[in-house]
Amino acid sequence: MDNLTLGRHISGQFNAELESIRNQVMVMGGLVEEQLNSAIEVLTSQDLDMANKIIGTDKSVNSMEVAVDEACTRIIAKRQPAASDLRLVMAIIKTITDLERIGDVAARIARTVIENRNKKSPPLVSVENMGRHTVKMLHDVLDAFARMDVDAAFKVYQEDAKVDREYESIIRELMTYMMEDPRSIPQVLNVLWCVRSLERVGDRCQNISEYIIYFVKGKDIRHINHDEVRDLLAK
Amino acid sequence: MDNLTLGRHISGQFNAELESIRNQVMVMGGLVEEQLNSAIEVLTSQDLDMANKIIGTDKSVNSMEVAVDEACTRIIAKRQPAASDLRLVMAIIKTITDLERIGDVAARIARTVIENRNKKSPPLVSVENMGRHTVKMLHDVLDAFARMDVDAAFKVYQEDAKVDREYESIIRELMTYMMEDPRSIPQVLNVLWCVRSLERVGDRCQNISEYIIYFVKGKDIRHINHDEVRDLLAK
Repeated sequence: MDNLTLGRHISGQFNAELESIRNQVMVMGGLVEEQLNSAIEVLTSQDLDMANKIIGTDKSVNSMEVAVDEACTRIIAKRQPAASDLRLVMAIIKTITDLERIGDVAARIARTVIENRNKKSPPLVSVENMGRHTVKMLHDVLDAFARMDVDAAFKVYQEDAKVDREYESIIRELMTYMMEDPRSIPQVLNVLWCVRSLERVGDRCQNISEYIIYFVKGKDIRHINHDEVRDLLAK
Repeated sequence: MDNLTLGRHISGQFNAELESIRNQVMVMGGLVEEQLNSAIEVLTSQDLDMANKIIGTDKSVNSMEVAVDEACTRIIAKRQPAASDLRLVMAIIKTITDLERIGDVAARIARTVIENRNKKSPPLVSVENMGRHTVKMLHDVLDAFARMDVDAAFKVYQEDAKVDREYESIIRELMTYMMEDPRSIPQVLNVLWCVRSLERVGDRCQNISEYIIYFVKGKDIRHINHDEVRDLLAK
């Protein structure tokens, strides 16, 4: 990271501004990670206080998104960044959108738990495992973002396929559960929406890993396949 | 639009570049609208040729997203836009992300139809109606984008609540269908995913209407409620 953007600007103030925005993204990311982690927890603990807290935190995450977005637009207008500075700002603008949506998923899971309290739920062990897996992906991609570490980002990028396989397996499991006990369908559907959202969290972590690779390598790797990405990173 | 950005740049070349990017967005939007419209059609017609065509078109949409994104980054680096020009570029960067994802939804629906050919499907009239509704929203928001018309954008913004109500009603309908015939669960789930994706198309059209309002009014209205948005627009 340092040799890419920092320590080479004539304006120390510009450095400080870029650094401040990156810090805000890390704070926002940390909050979203905490939210998602708590959401997976309430899914099994049914802790309604914690569920309400997650929903409350979502407002802070939303405000952070707007604040970072404004800071990015301001820095573009004022500092006219080019090359890797501009790519960094672009990567940040996209990253915060995905982070905000992951926060929405956590809030949605919390709301589902509140709406379905006291109702019989299908077994949630595999959902919890998948949830933990996405929390880990989010943690790792934020870590990769902090260090602008392409290799770490590529690991997260590949991890998404595993989450997709877990997702498929859980869907089959829940489908069997519904077919065996049709009265459980409404409850199972609520769980299904949570599982679907968690699968999307994996996609969003993969998106963030793509922005990191875009920033460092200067190449947009969305919509190209894994092998091509691997070749690019080997260069 | 014209009095906001066009005809007041010293550089006629800059105007031409901005105009060219806007045109690319309109072409991309038109293609996505066509894709979504065809996807709703194949849902009932089961026309596999058309389904394959939709999946093929998704690649063009993806390339367009990358091309417009690059053009936006280039114009920022080269022209250092400020004020409403910069807001326009930012609005475009966000708009194309949502358009690309709407294209993904169309491709996903087409894939679902191919995977489930010859299988008994639940009744799809209400899904088709909801689908048509989202196509209309997309059409209207692209129209609002072309003219940068805030009032038209706000109409789309409000329309999303209706799509949400249609969605809730279809979910209840499909749930009853599954409970009455548990063997239908796998097929109904496939339809449920399509319905869920269509509901997200409504959200994405609402997002685009927010970017239009941001561009014209200079105010970020994400995460504030409908009444506040109305007050802002009345000013």
